[in-house]
Amino acid sequence: MAMEKNDELESLRSQVRDITAQIMRNVHQRMELAKQIGEIKSRLGIDVKDEKVEHEIRLMVLSLADEIGVGRDFALQLLNVLLAESEQVQAQKRPQKGQKQTHLGIFMKAKQLEASGKKIIHMEVGEPDYSPPAAVGESLAESFKLKQYHYTDTRGIPELRDAIARKEGVSEGQVVVTPGGRFAVFSAITSLLKAGQELIVVEPAWPAYKECADFIGAMTKALLTTLENKWAPDLKQLEEMVNPSTKMIALNYPNNPTGKILDNKTMEKIVSIARDNGLYLLSDEVYADYAFKKFASIHEHGYDKSILVSSFSKRYAMTGFRVGYAIASRDIIAKMAKVQAVGITSVAEPMQHAALTALGEDPSENVRTMKKRLDFVSGKLKEMSLRFVEPDGAMYVYPKLPRGDDIALVEKLLEKGVAIAPGSGFGDNYRQFVRISACQPEKTLEKGIDIMASVIKEST
Amino acid sequence: MAMEKNDELESLRSQVRDITAQIMRNVHQRMELAKQIGEIKSRLGIDVKDEKVEHEIRLMVLSLADEIGVGRDFALQLLNVLLAESEQVQAQKRPQKGQKQTHLGIFMKAKQLEASGKKIIHMEVGEPDYSPPAAVGESLAESFKLKQYHYTDTRGIPELRDAIARKEGVSEGQVVVTPGGRFAVFSAITSLLKAGQELIVVEPAWPAYKECADFIGAMTKALLTTLENKWAPDLKQLEEMVNPSTKMIALNYPNNPTGKILDNKTMEKIVSIARDNGLYLLSDEVYADYAFKKFASIHEHGYDKSILVSSFSKRYAMTGFRVGYAIASRDIIAKMAKVQAVGITSVAEPMQHAALTALGEDPSENVRTMKKRLDFVSGKLKEMSLRFVEPDGAMYVYPKLPRGDDIALVEKLLEKGVAIAPGSGFGDNYRQFVRISACQPEKTLEKGIDIMASVIKEST
Repeated sequence: MAMEKNDELESLRSQVRDITAQIMRNVHQRMELAKQIGEIKSRLGIDVKDEKVEHEIRLMVLSLADEIGVGRDFALQLLNVLLAESEQVQAQKRPQKGQKQTHLGIFMKAKQLEASGKKIIHMEVGEPDYSPPAAVGESLAESFKLKQYHYTDTRGIPELRDAIARKEGVSEGQVVVTPGGRFAVFSAITSLLKAGQELIVVEPAWPAYKECADFIGAMTKALLTTLENKWAPDLKQLEEMVNPSTKMIALNYPNNPTGKILDNKTMEKIVSIARDNGLYLLSDEVYADYAFKKFASIHEHGYDKSILVSSFSKRYAMTGFRVGYAIASRDIIAKMAKVQAVGITSVAEPMQHAALTALGEDPSENVRTMKKRLDFVSGKLKEMSLRFVEPDGAMYVYPKLPRGDDIALVEKLLEKGVAIAPGSGFGDNYRQFVRISACQPEKTLEKGIDIMASVIKEST
Repeated sequence: MAMEKNDELESLRSQVRDITAQIMRNVHQRMELAKQIGEIKSRLGIDVKDEKVEHEIRLMVLSLADEIGVGRDFALQLLNVLLAESEQVQAQKRPQKGQKQTHLGIFMKAKQLEASGKKIIHMEVGEPDYSPPAAVGESLAESFKLKQYHYTDTRGIPELRDAIARKEGVSEGQVVVTPGGRFAVFSAITSLLKAGQELIVVEPAWPAYKECADFIGAMTKALLTTLENKWAPDLKQLEEMVNPSTKMIALNYPNNPTGKILDNKTMEKIVSIARDNGLYLLSDEVYADYAFKKFASIHEHGYDKSILVSSFSKRYAMTGFRVGYAIASRDIIAKMAKVQAVGITSVAEPMQHAALTALGEDPSENVRTMKKRLDFVSGKLKEMSLRFVEPDGAMYVYPKLPRGDDIALVEKLLEKGVAIAPGSGFGDNYRQFVRISACQPEKTLEKGIDIMASVIKEST
């Protein structure tokens, strides 16, 4: 009996081998077609990526999947593997884009220059120069005596989770403490998206969202905003971008780099687009304290697939402590905590106690300082006749250069001891912008901007 | 002219749609065959996963890929998507395995019990009870005054990288400082493996290796070792496991959980298998200080695709500081640093200075303490007539239970205030083992083991 079954098994396996070979041959044929398409596109100067064609083929595959009884997720996964390969095959014939330069890359270069003895004015990085609350220093000094140096619950020490839950008006099970807001973004994106699925970001954007999506093979679609339109997203365009592979929209208001805050009506509309399409809504609110006009957290929209990301870095100038947190439904927090358990076990305990201490402190002096500095930077940039939108919040100004590209200016300035962030680090379409961080005293900012002004003038 | 080209483009696109539909139909047919195979396997009681069949089909696909001119990496990626789906289709018909319980899961449960007021003897977690060096406490107290609370280079502050490089006899460019040894493992596995590629682990194993591979959709193959064979890996079997999808072997000596240290000849043979097959060799040496017989680091084998992982957690009892590091070639370190930049920006700066201070301290007293405790635990387990191999190193003893399964014992013990780690957390084949961590004073260990002895006796 077992023998007969094994014969049957062998016959089925042989059929599997045949059909696998057939699939491979078809895939090869598909690639050859892609190559030919690529050559034509190259001659016509058309972009390799064609959203409309992709969209059509995706709908075709989904309807076919329904018809023949293949799971939609699996069908899309397979299609995405094929699309990615086609794109690569076509792109091979194209000139390579230059290596992308981000604010973090410039910061690393600046750090290396400093290590070799050069003085640098840091206007590239979002790191306030003022000190964390003094009480944080005391907490740090105490933590060793109190033996606060052990593994903790992956989601954070209970006292800190409770304090955050109280501050945010949620239950403790909706909180995870992370090593910086960045890891909250990382664990949200990597736990909620799969390879081939899509994330929508509103550009210009902090590059982390795309980096995290890239990391797991998810795709990022950019909704472009413009200086001319005061960095407001076009919601009709947003609606049109959503397709069956879309799983998440990432928002970041007050915005890095533009300083934009969306009005409530726009936020409501975005939430309703997310709700209608079952999308996660990642709301990175690490600059929420630095809001100079009304800002409403994603919370207030009561959407169960939203994830709020916050941090101690900007509010309390505690960048180097690496503590942030996320607020979401229990289900989402459980998924994010799993990523954290895999990656880091838990956040350093002395840092968690420092954060707990900070929560009792008032950051409003920091906010006033930042507002004054941003006004100062804005004034200077106006004198230079640069075009920009005055920030509603956050810590940056994002002006447009009169001419030339961002990288050339950034590198020339670095030679002169001034570090600023290239605009293209926030999106390929922003090569004529730079981001100036107002995290230094006015005197330092003045010096840096004056050097920038003279370099821009020279290049006329 | 442009019009004609567009016609040609349209015709090619229509062919792409047709061939894509054909691929989907073939894939559907393949799934139907897989389902039939699954039913037969289920009736015959055969495992869903059949390594030999997978291996054959992989070789077939590779040779076909070469023949028709499809890239090997892409062909394997596509095949792996198909194999994963077949496996899932077949497994759907099977009874689910129970939720896996790891030492970290038990630790979380124990922490929750403690939060509710229960006293727990912690023999589940690898966290020494002794204190970090006193100088570390002073460094912590100083770090606020010294303004050591900023973003740092993603790879770590230069002073710490230099000190580690000197200690390990490598150049500074071969070092990355990580938030715990775990993140070094995470960034090595996630940056060097792709979805569908394979990692070989020697089981029983710390579950992190498999977790990190799972995270990016890479597959883990276990090379099983046995108590009977004194936990030595069978190198012939290792050689046979390597296939074109294999990219990395993960080693962990002194071993968690068995305490095993491999002799130099065995290590040399493993390195030569890795070298012959171009495999990365991840060597997790976080217990290197706790070696009670000769232990040679992977370093000494001069293999350029090796990654050494180390940590301050065990050596200096600094678990809660979350500082570890990796040593590898510059290329590998650059890839790992990129993951770190995406996930966490940098390691908390006060923690890095604490680690730098610790490097100047002598951990040999800790090592003597641990050896004494392990001898004590071994003695107690002998009295209970449990079978185990006396550890060559690390901080654990891994005895075999006379009967019953690990989870039942672990849960009964937790009720009685004793936390130990289930053996199956280190591999499905070790349900008759438990891991006892010797990170408590002898008196505490004695109490815990006595309770364990009485519970085992009761269940006779």
